[in-house]
Amino acid sequence: MFLTVMTVAEGLAALAPARRAPVSAVPPDPGLVPAQDVVASEPLPAWARATVDGYAVRARDTYAASETLPVLLELTGEVEMGRSPDGEVGAGAAMAIPTGGLLPPGADAVVMVEHTSEPMPGHVELMRGVAPGDGVLQPGEEARPGDVLVAAGRPLRAAELGLLAAAGVTEIAAHDRPRVGIVSTGDEIVPQSTAALAPGQVRDACAPALAGLVREAGGEPVLRGIVPDDPAELERVLAEAVERDDVVVVSAGSSVGARDLTATVVARLGDVVCHGLAIKPGKPTLLADCGGVPLIGLPGNPRSALVVFRLVGMPLVRTVAGLSSPPAVASVSARLARDVPSAAGRLDVVQVAVRDGVATPLFGSSALLGPMVRADGCFQVPEAATGLGAGAEVVVELYA
Amino acid sequence: MFLTVMTVAEGLAALAPARRAPVSAVPPDPGLVPAQDVVASEPLPAWARATVDGYAVRARDTYAASETLPVLLELTGEVEMGRSPDGEVGAGAAMAIPTGGLLPPGADAVVMVEHTSEPMPGHVELMRGVAPGDGVLQPGEEARPGDVLVAAGRPLRAAELGLLAAAGVTEIAAHDRPRVGIVSTGDEIVPQSTAALAPGQVRDACAPALAGLVREAGGEPVLRGIVPDDPAELERVLAEAVERDDVVVVSAGSSVGARDLTATVVARLGDVVCHGLAIKPGKPTLLADCGGVPLIGLPGNPRSALVVFRLVGMPLVRTVAGLSSPPAVASVSARLARDVPSAAGRLDVVQVAVRDGVATPLFGSSALLGPMVRADGCFQVPEAATGLGAGAEVVVELYA
Repeated sequence: MFLTVMTVAEGLAALAPARRAPVSAVPPDPGLVPAQDVVASEPLPAWARATVDGYAVRARDTYAASETLPVLLELTGEVEMGRSPDGEVGAGAAMAIPTGGLLPPGADAVVMVEHTSEPMPGHVELMRGVAPGDGVLQPGEEARPGDVLVAAGRPLRAAELGLLAAAGVTEIAAHDRPRVGIVSTGDEIVPQSTAALAPGQVRDACAPALAGLVREAGGEPVLRGIVPDDPAELERVLAEAVERDDVVVVSAGSSVGARDLTATVVARLGDVVCHGLAIKPGKPTLLADCGGVPLIGLPGNPRSALVVFRLVGMPLVRTVAGLSSPPAVASVSARLARDVPSAAGRLDVVQVAVRDGVATPLFGSSALLGPMVRADGCFQVPEAATGLGAGAEVVVELYA
Repeated sequence: MFLTVMTVAEGLAALAPARRAPVSAVPPDPGLVPAQDVVASEPLPAWARATVDGYAVRARDTYAASETLPVLLELTGEVEMGRSPDGEVGAGAAMAIPTGGLLPPGADAVVMVEHTSEPMPGHVELMRGVAPGDGVLQPGEEARPGDVLVAAGRPLRAAELGLLAAAGVTEIAAHDRPRVGIVSTGDEIVPQSTAALAPGQVRDACAPALAGLVREAGGEPVLRGIVPDDPAELERVLAEAVERDDVVVVSAGSSVGARDLTATVVARLGDVVCHGLAIKPGKPTLLADCGGVPLIGLPGNPRSALVVFRLVGMPLVRTVAGLSSPPAVASVSARLARDVPSAAGRLDVVQVAVRDGVATPLFGSSALLGPMVRADGCFQVPEAATGLGAGAEVVVELYA
């Protein structure tokens, strides 16, 4: 077998799935990814509204007003919240209006209460003039019919939820969360719930950890259980996952034998586009296209698996989820506490603890999860670099 | 009534709730906040395991090995994954072992297969020596009994989920998501589902948007509906929220009258610690302690409400959720496209779109949600500053 080793970018480009999670009509919810632009069907607001507490007036009646020479208008009524104004504003008249009140017919501006007084019943005195439109939110100022309220491909945030609610949109066409099938392999792997381990057994740490990252990427983890190192059984489980899920992830084992077995089985189900990635940890990563379903074979060590899934799996899940661009990532600049060696041509992902602007690398066997638990995040030594010296500034991507 | 206006920091310090969400025994899940440290009850791993594919040996048998003068050992068997080794490694002997295999009795190191050959059946030739412990993960190297696996107060991430799974922890003591009661007020407010608005009516945009931020902060929104501007009804609904929820949020209306009504009712239910915040937008913010339940009265304009809730409400929800420190925030440095005026003594929160390192402020009435929908995030003009000039570098907090 010809073994293709790629960089992470090459691997993602080679796999680039066309598949998108199915679209359903659902109520707007945080994180949902609209499958198409949502447009306004009515003007927002529907009517002109006051943006300040004060008096609805005809602007032309107020031009002469000043502190020294106030203008006196007749007070002809009061606008109540949530109701059609009872009356209209004629020449030389004014109506009291609260913030959010519907601008009465005849009025074209609102004078702030701070610039007025009521010197005698039935009259209001203005110490300042207003121009037409002052203190008024115009119909359609938030959105006109046909305006895009929220764009396709961008997860809904709080502001979008508010705007959709204001527009009366109770259902949108959004992508379902992609189903991500997670398969654990290995004769030694037993469920997390195993109270007492027999000699040589190891509880499945990969599947629950990957499920966490799948959720973080907006996917729905489908735990497809633990499969022994048996080609027929692995093929059956993977074929079912490829049939039913949008993305498939299999922890391909930590030994060469286990990985070869997975590679052989995956090659029967689809096209293997990459047999390894030029990264550390995580070199033994398999990428395959199984009839449009992207499949990732991860290294068996949980920490390696998590590093690779963050770099490769989460972007794949987000693509299938319909996201048009990657999300913002929390990061911090820090200075390296010590030298970090690396080989040229290989991307190194190094976990670090960050305190007071200093990033301390957390080394240890990739069989250990501890360095990742103690880490605040990680930084990358790019393919072109041959290591970084103590004191070098690095950008640490913070783990959510 | 004496009106207390505070900075955001003063307001948070004055309210600082002692309340924490109840604790339940639940399966580990992403984002859960452990209420106490989770400690290991058994050594991890339980037995010494190989970290490489190769041969389990006695290190002292290998010291002389080199490329030019290999050491020949007798191959006495093979360790199978997930099983107790069938035999032991005596002097001058070796057993084949896969990565993750249980180290057989007698052996104290594993020679990588890359440094060996099998020149004839039943024997293995070593081209390199190993020291005791090489190629071996020792019992307890991940965790010894009593070691803290995950710390209280820090939300579970993928690595923690993996480590807990490896340790067989299927249940932890974690805080429930804090219940955050959300009350909308105003005679003009109608449900989002209202198809046709009557003149003056406005659909409730605050509640769905706030619910999104509550979820983002790890809380469980409890939508307590829309209350008209009626003191008795508002008191009934708020009293019920204070009784049942961990945090209460009420949109206190956009007009002075509506806000006064809310302040009067809240003063009956608890101690108002702050009648206003020195921020823009969001000045008319009410903070109260209702028998240990923090209550936030938000401005009625949805955008002002969201700005304040991000600054004040989300930290409160996280405190009550049991978090010991604030989460990492995604941010980016950018240069201002234009001058931004501000008054000294007031914190300004300005929404911006960021393109190519340039932050363009998005202004508009605080009654509009659009600027927030178009925004990538926001930056703050601190209390001490009197505005920022075009070209100034700002740190933009990116909206999730």
